[in-house]
Amino acid sequence: MNTTTASCFSRQAWERNAPAYEAIRNMPFNNELAAGVLDGARFKHYITQDAHYLIGFGRALALSAAKAPHPDRIAQFAKAAEVAIVVERALHGSFFAQFGITPKIFAETPLSPACHHYVSFLLATAYAEPYEVVLGALLPCFWIYAEVGRDIHSRAAQSNPYQAWIDTYAGEEFHIAVRAVIEATDEAADPASANIRGRMHAAYTRATQLEWLFWDSGYRLETWPI
Amino acid sequence: MNTTTASCFSRQAWERNAPAYEAIRNMPFNNELAAGVLDGARFKHYITQDAHYLIGFGRALALSAAKAPHPDRIAQFAKAAEVAIVVERALHGSFFAQFGITPKIFAETPLSPACHHYVSFLLATAYAEPYEVVLGALLPCFWIYAEVGRDIHSRAAQSNPYQAWIDTYAGEEFHIAVRAVIEATDEAADPASANIRGRMHAAYTRATQLEWLFWDSGYRLETWPI
Amino acid sequence: MNTTTASCFSRQAWERNAPAYEAIRNMPFNNELAAGVLDGARFKHYITQDAHYLIGFGRALALSAAKAPHPDRIAQFAKAAEVAIVVERALHGSFFAQFGITPKIFAETPLSPACHHYVSFLLATAYAEPYEVVLGALLPCFWIYAEVGRDIHSRAAQSNPYQAWIDTYAGEEFHIAVRAVIEATDEAADPASANIRGRMHAAYTRATQLEWLFWDSGYRLETWPI
Amino acid sequence: MNTTTASCFSRQAWERNAPAYEAIRNMPFNNELAAGVLDGARFKHYITQDAHYLIGFGRALALSAAKAPHPDRIAQFAKAAEVAIVVERALHGSFFAQFGITPKIFAETPLSPACHHYVSFLLATAYAEPYEVVLGALLPCFWIYAEVGRDIHSRAAQSNPYQAWIDTYAGEEFHIAVRAVIEATDEAADPASANIRGRMHAAYTRATQLEWLFWDSGYRLETWPI
Repeated sequence: MNTTTASCFSRQAWERNAPAYEAIRNMPFNNELAAGVLDGARFKHYITQDAHYLIGFGRALALSAAKAPHPDRIAQFAKAAEVAIVVERALHGSFFAQFGITPKIFAETPLSPACHHYVSFLLATAYAEPYEVVLGALLPCFWIYAEVGRDIHSRAAQSNPYQAWIDTYAGEEFHIAVRAVIEATDEAADPASANIRGRMHAAYTRATQLEWLFWDSGYRLETWPI
Repeated sequence: MNTTTASCFSRQAWERNAPAYEAIRNMPFNNELAAGVLDGARFKHYITQDAHYLIGFGRALALSAAKAPHPDRIAQFAKAAEVAIVVERALHGSFFAQFGITPKIFAETPLSPACHHYVSFLLATAYAEPYEVVLGALLPCFWIYAEVGRDIHSRAAQSNPYQAWIDTYAGEEFHIAVRAVIEATDEAADPASANIRGRMHAAYTRATQLEWLFWDSGYRLETWPI
Repeated sequence: MNTTTASCFSRQAWERNAPAYEAIRNMPFNNELAAGVLDGARFKHYITQDAHYLIGFGRALALSAAKAPHPDRIAQFAKAAEVAIVVERALHGSFFAQFGITPKIFAETPLSPACHHYVSFLLATAYAEPYEVVLGALLPCFWIYAEVGRDIHSRAAQSNPYQAWIDTYAGEEFHIAVRAVIEATDEAADPASANIRGRMHAAYTRATQLEWLFWDSGYRLETWPI
Repeated sequence: MNTTTASCFSRQAWERNAPAYEAIRNMPFNNELAAGVLDGARFKHYITQDAHYLIGFGRALALSAAKAPHPDRIAQFAKAAEVAIVVERALHGSFFAQFGITPKIFAETPLSPACHHYVSFLLATAYAEPYEVVLGALLPCFWIYAEVGRDIHSRAAQSNPYQAWIDTYAGEEFHIAVRAVIEATDEAADPASANIRGRMHAAYTRATQLEWLFWDSGYRLETWPI
């Protein structure tokens, strides 16, 4: 992902949030996933919430399509919304079968607090904020997954039970899509005012924090305290 | 499109607005288009505004994706949003070349009052109203075009200069998409309250009126009076 | 309203749209209203649609409150939304009684095409666009009414049957509110990017055109052609 | 608040969430606040976040005004949005002075995770969901505060350092506003479909959970873990 220059929003955003990315990369969840020793209950919690998340992520992507100023970007983000749902279904078809998560069980499993928080943030931002800021909020999920996917792929244990997950996010198809989102975000940030750019950074950082919380919640098997 | 039953929203909507459909079908614009004698300036005005319209229609479809309750419908409408933009580009590539409408000319041609009115209505509805009512507003554009397309196709003069336009809307691919939107609309209307169903009908009728105004504005080469 | 400087958005917007304002000021509707000779049916059409309009205007003002970056502006526009409804009720209480427009008749009178167009534009803009652009769309209704109100007041015939309407918009209370909206708009425009500022101007001009169409539609006793 | 009947949404919602209300009423935060022994740092954290919350709450109320079907409710919720900001300012003027929270300190204090979660949920719901469901999400904050306020007031220690806070929420003015919101919610729920009513209940329960998390986060002096 070294296609950006020093003045680019995306490069600034990555650098400012590099410690958070390092923290995410080294979370027990990801280290144990790479080593192939992550407890099945934790992965099951994670993958169930990820399926819930992807539906909300798809909605937020559809909203970014609705707000995109140029037809090319409308098509790009509408396509991305569709892909998010297709990926969600693919999860259903493979890991859900493996873990015995039927459609009924999935529908009856509420969003965890961390998942609900992240999805609420994305939807609130996607409706309330201008296009530029919406992209700031959507980018971390794409970019961090691409980097974490490649990182885990590079150090994954052989015969890893989570190989299909790793391959999805380390694969070239996903990385091409991520680069297109980075480009769209930089294109939007370039002519933006300092105020909008500041809000883009704030949204990027908030989404990064919520990525951490999401993984952490999977490891903690998080449920609602009340 | 005879897949619906008497109690279905779509059937009721079609019947209630049958006179308006008949009026649209017999507008000078469509009669002259079928006969292949429609003035080029009128078609040029229409096709330019239609390209503007499809961008707004694509945004509204993306919003219906964002609001759809089930992932299958999110994917369906996100796909439809993408297709609207793809069709808009196809218009650019064929008729725009034929009529000498460059990207610059297109960008500098403002939306006509009727086009602006229709797009504003779709966007206002798509943001402000629940999913069911959004579908009520989106359906007429799909359905009326499918019916008008088939009607004109059945009576079109040979060597019609507008054959590519006619074939697009009379084609099976478009009709499959339209049937899927009718199904989604009936699925949404079925469990809805009387209040929501009433608003769906109101939105359907309003969009039908705006369809008429749109064709009429092309024939009148409409511009802003001030 | 000479509180602005040359670089201000509001001053630029007024100057760019000065011919449209002059056209509005001199429309038959306003000239005959000032002379006290406007046909009652025309005023009745206008005042009925104005009541419909104010409800939509109130909604759009509430949305600008929701998007305002500072709490002071949230309170200002929430208050303005409430006032729009209060004014709408005051119309009901006076002119509606005079013209025999019962609540039932009002509820059954559909929005005219021009009113529906204007309200749809305001709502679409208020949901889809950032705060700055929303204010650009809302400002003309405030400002043009303030100026038209004062202009008509200065030349109104004695014993004018529409004196209550004239006094509302020529009154100091309304003008204080209008100045506060101009200030909020300039405050928003000042740090905005060229792109946002351009969209503010486009929204301002569009709303000005729709003001003209609204008055014109009252004079024409406009109804839906289909 | 015994104005409702067994079939009313509000009564059902209260009964279904009665254990959560009991849990909230008996949280250490509220017991210690009633006893006048709550640690100042905890109240300071709470009151700062509450000021952030009220701004978001005001935005969500403005959105409910925008979506309200009847002008009376537009005015009611626009007024409520304005009042939320006025109350937020009143907090600034009294407790903020007492705790040394300057406008600069407030602006630089980020929303806590719990506050950010709650506000994101309210905004996402207010934009994405129909009016009925928005009211379901907004009601717990009103109603729980009214009940907690009265409960604490009835058992508050004399010379309580938090008496001004207690008096605000135990006061008749606030309770009149709360009853009006309950009425509006029941009015909306009454003709709603089972699906919408179900989503109203889900939103009500979620907001109740977030109320608990909000108070808990104040007691825990919650900050972002990363």
